[in-house]
Amino acid sequence: MNYTEIIGFVAAFLTTAAFLPQVYKTWKTKDVSSLSMPMLLMFFIGVFSWLIYGVLISSPSMIFANAITIISAFLLVYFKIKYK
Amino acid sequence: MNYTEIIGFVAAFLTTAAFLPQVYKTWKTKDVSSLSMPMLLMFFIGVFSWLIYGVLISSPSMIFANAITIISAFLLVYFKIKYK
Repeated sequence: MNYTEIIGFVAAFLTTAAFLPQVYKTWKTKDVSSLSMPMLLMFFIGVFSWLIYGVLISSPSMIFANAITIISAFLLVYFKIKYK
Repeated sequence: MNYTEIIGFVAAFLTTAAFLPQVYKTWKTKDVSSLSMPMLLMFFIGVFSWLIYGVLISSPSMIFANAITIISAFLLVYFKIKYK
């Protein structure tokens, strides 16, 4: 793995991990009042676009990061619908 | 601009814009209780790493997205310190 991808994987780890407490908190509290659906959908579609972009530019760290973050984004959309 | 960078800029627009309501809400309500400092710092350092990665792989959309998102992340860290 080259120097650039090491920085990419550090970035991937940090930004991916930063979302997990939000997912966990929403799952435990079932409180979705402070999450807005338009924002969640924008974020979900945005992460999906980054995933496609990562594939197109052949970036391992972007594919890794966005494949995990899209699961977090999907779960938040799901909780927002389920617990509204 | 090529096809790949158009997808990148769509992604950049969506994920960048998805954070603005959070920044605005925190600024207006001064309520930082639901934001955790370790999470904010991880996110800030993560976005900074993505910015460096974007420069290293010469990705215009990644540089654009992360240069704006790092301002949002910085403001959230600042609010967390100021309004705690």
